[in-house]
Amino acid sequence: MEYPSKLIEDAVNEIAKLPGIGKKSALRMALHLLKQEEDRTQSLADSLVNLRTKTQYCQSCHNIADAPICSICQNRQRDRSIICVVETATDLIAIENTSQYRGLYHVLGGVISPLDGVSPSDLTIDGLLQRVNADDSEVKEVLLALSATMEGDTTAFFITKKLKPLDIKITSIARGVPIGSELEYTDEITLGRSIVGRKAYEG
Amino acid sequence: MEYPSKLIEDAVNEIAKLPGIGKKSALRMALHLLKQEEDRTQSLADSLVNLRTKTQYCQSCHNIADAPICSICQNRQRDRSIICVVETATDLIAIENTSQYRGLYHVLGGVISPLDGVSPSDLTIDGLLQRVNADDSEVKEVLLALSATMEGDTTAFFITKKLKPLDIKITSIARGVPIGSELEYTDEITLGRSIVGRKAYEG
Repeated sequence: MEYPSKLIEDAVNEIAKLPGIGKKSALRMALHLLKQEEDRTQSLADSLVNLRTKTQYCQSCHNIADAPICSICQNRQRDRSIICVVETATDLIAIENTSQYRGLYHVLGGVISPLDGVSPSDLTIDGLLQRVNADDSEVKEVLLALSATMEGDTTAFFITKKLKPLDIKITSIARGVPIGSELEYTDEITLGRSIVGRKAYEG
Repeated sequence: MEYPSKLIEDAVNEIAKLPGIGKKSALRMALHLLKQEEDRTQSLADSLVNLRTKTQYCQSCHNIADAPICSICQNRQRDRSIICVVETATDLIAIENTSQYRGLYHVLGGVISPLDGVSPSDLTIDGLLQRVNADDSEVKEVLLALSATMEGDTTAFFITKKLKPLDIKITSIARGVPIGSELEYTDEITLGRSIVGRKAYEG
């Protein structure tokens, strides 16, 4: 694609590096900014730089934070007897938005994946064990909320093995047919597992 | 949606103001930036601010430019006998990318739309007439490449009326069934017009 100006070209190339954005969308955004007041672009730019330079990670759960300890870990209203283990901060946000969980979290930073060169030591598994083992630990349950993939299962297996010696209940989020989806469109593996893992009817 | 950090929230809100970006995509982009090196975010931010503060508009054709006169108007290789009238710089870029047009352009800045409060004086129509009327003008043809909408047609009609007194050929881009699309999925108006406006077969 040819651009009428070097400035546009630079901006498009930079924007198009963001995930899910192609050159056409990037161009649309660049032209949109040109039509807006100058301070709109400035505040967008500032917010990005502030995000990148000032964001901290919680020393306890590795969630994104504005302080050394994140707002969830600081919140005394949260149930300290349960830790939900997630891969990324995105997953944490997704679970928070369900309003169904009031415990603490632990962000692993990924899953074990030898193919991608991710070994257990690249994740925050040691930190999780320390939290559970700590003298003042109130943790009674570890809830694994990992992806239903080979890598997610491997990671869940690894963590379970490490936690086994401790007197901790280990649970996993339920797998099954998603709410609102029709059986005929559900993939065979999910449907098969939902039959194997059937529960007493609570209707 | 709740965010683990004020910095994330600010960034998501700013990014989500861009066209076609919702909060979920904005969050994905923000988290992506957090994973990248700091200078990546800085260069993205710089490119946006540079774009907004340094971009100029061509004094002749109103295209986006790095200088008072844009690279197309400056280019002596371009055919100065034809001016293609477009609504926005985006349309200009789209036509440039076809490599089928080697003349000059004129960017109107929109179309006449009483409902949106856009009158002919809000557009660069006077500038176009001046260019065509200029003593050193080489213009022999004005090609209208406006949207096939009521507003586009109104604008084309208005410009045609203004240019009529001059000895200028006025053309419009061809309307019809898009290349590669199937007749049965073409809307009735397009199909109807493509029959009314049929051409001698050149196969």
